Amino acid sequence: MAEPFALAVDAMGGDEGPRAIVEGIAQAGERHKLARILLVGDASRLTPLLAASPAAASCCTVRHAPDVIDASARVAAALRARNASLRVAIDAVAAGEASGLLTAGNTAAVLAISKTVLGTMPGIHRPAIAGILPSQRGTLVLLDLGANLVCDARNLVEFAFMGDGFARIVLGQAAPSIGLLNVASEPEKGDDRLLRAAEILRASALGAQFAGFVEGHDIIGGKTDIVVTDGFTGNVAMKMGEGALRFSGALLRQALTGGVAARLAAFLMRPSLKRLRQRIDPWQYNGAVMLGLNGVVVKSRGSTDGAGFSRAVAVGLNMVGNNFNDRIREAVSKNVLF
Amino acid sequence: MAEPFALAVDAMGGDEGPRAIVEGIAQAGERHKLARILLVGDASRLTPLLAASPAAASCCTVRHAPDVIDASARVAAALRARNASLRVAIDAVAAGEASGLLTAGNTAAVLAISKTVLGTMPGIHRPAIAGILPSQRGTLVLLDLGANLVCDARNLVEFAFMGDGFARIVLGQAAPSIGLLNVASEPEKGDDRLLRAAEILRASALGAQFAGFVEGHDIIGGKTDIVVTDGFTGNVAMKMGEGALRFSGALLRQALTGGVAARLAAFLMRPSLKRLRQRIDPWQYNGAVMLGLNGVVVKSRGSTDGAGFSRAVAVGLNMVGNNFNDRIREAVSKNVLF
Repeated sequence: MAEPFALAVDAMGGDEGPRAIVEGIAQAGERHKLARILLVGDASRLTPLLAASPAAASCCTVRHAPDVIDASARVAAALRARNASLRVAIDAVAAGEASGLLTAGNTAAVLAISKTVLGTMPGIHRPAIAGILPSQRGTLVLLDLGANLVCDARNLVEFAFMGDGFARIVLGQAAPSIGLLNVASEPEKGDDRLLRAAEILRASALGAQFAGFVEGHDIIGGKTDIVVTDGFTGNVAMKMGEGALRFSGALLRQALTGGVAARLAAFLMRPSLKRLRQRIDPWQYNGAVMLGLNGVVVKSRGSTDGAGFSRAVAVGLNMVGNNFNDRIREAVSKNVLF
Repeated sequence: MAEPFALAVDAMGGDEGPRAIVEGIAQAGERHKLARILLVGDASRLTPLLAASPAAASCCTVRHAPDVIDASARVAAALRARNASLRVAIDAVAAGEASGLLTAGNTAAVLAISKTVLGTMPGIHRPAIAGILPSQRGTLVLLDLGANLVCDARNLVEFAFMGDGFARIVLGQAAPSIGLLNVASEPEKGDDRLLRAAEILRASALGAQFAGFVEGHDIIGGKTDIVVTDGFTGNVAMKMGEGALRFSGALLRQALTGGVAARLAAFLMRPSLKRLRQRIDPWQYNGAVMLGLNGVVVKSRGSTDGAGFSRAVAVGLNMVGNNFNDRIREAVSKNVLF
């Protein structure tokens, strides 16, 4: 068999269609020499886009898939769509033709098909979705973002192990600190599930990194490098943080356009405002990852443009290039959790 | 019996002690002619503070209570502390001597003692904590903020009714829109509990105001006037929003102090920055309220200063002055919910 592709990219997922996907690959290719990519989708649309983009064409091989799973598709229908670009791309990962998957498609469909086709990693009961947010520390890994709306203590502990691997491998952190999200930070406060997860973590190989319970304001406040919670709470927290940052950004823009003095101020502040925008941009790390599957799975936001997608390409290549899944598997197998 | 006091104020709760409480009452008194307040706490500390503050002294009557429930007290111990300022103040509400309670004390203790001494309003199964956050719409009522970490459909529906009353009476909104927090906004997505709560709300007297499911970014994004969720998620969401707003505020301060140009810009922007700060200040409405008890109960933040406490005084007086609890009781009794 030929050397595998680094990534199978679902070219049809996402609200902006294949143009944004090809543009994202081209932009990533301008920054880094790219590994080989299997670009899966409607060949009649992909071929002309690649012809117009030498940077993308130089690393992409097209595989035709006639169907598309759209953003509103139900999971059951998505699982039956065997000729959809997302499914063909995941099949290529399962067959060992590509080391990882990258898609901007429907999250529920990506998760369901990945679980079915790739399977869950040995030692892990439930895959989780992890994302990166800005924080006072610089970055913050938050998980689960919605793969598991209800979690038990065991799931939360596994999320901590997977989050640890993600922070070490993708963000290069040496011994990331880990917090368990709660409504109080005192170690004796919490429901049985949280108290049990904390007890297991304290006694685990992550014991020295485990900082106990953290509260909502500690997430962006940067008390720890990683925050672990169930998928319902994590989803709400992430979106709440993004909404709040966008709100303050909108108010700042208003403040900087309200009159001559404000516009002069905006001019004087241009460099520092640019840095500010970059720091609080919730999209700076586009690419949530689905951890705990037999294969690297990176999920870009559906509404991404080319620039956003190029960041997800970088996350995917980084994970694949660093043998992310082998290292997580090894870490989990060394720490028999239960 | 003499005309009741408008509020019984626990003068010993809060991290800053009775000085901040008396200062807050004085500040509120400078803005509005205050109704009569029963100030409960250590008389040997309160008497000199009032002697030094004519604005507070003119509306306050001191009632001595020798003990204090501190911020770390366990609920069981708090329930036994019959001579603590918080308990004596709640007893005064229960006895009809005061129309409402205001405290900056330990939230768990306030909730437990209020439930025990005042009891839960007829027709309501679980009291809830509601708070006000800034949003794109101006303000947002979020509940529950932590009184009930796990909720069933019935609890969520009751929270919607109580939140509706709060938004109408305290914020003066005519027909506030109501969202039920979820990880997706499609009406068919969600667990049984959320689907059931949505079904009941649609068929209820609030049906026309019910906007269906909202997501985390819709909270500050201002999709609805009221967002209803369980106490765990609400607590995390509120603190996440506050943390994010504080983070962007800190970055903006950095941007405005980094060099001569930035400092000149800051000078030019002073008025608009002041407005911006006021808009995003998560403390602008200090005073979460405990809804669904037989008595108005307002909880200021523990770490509040006098200015913050004065806002909580205003919330409490507003609720008492508008017969908040009678109106909620009437609304609930007219809508037999289950």
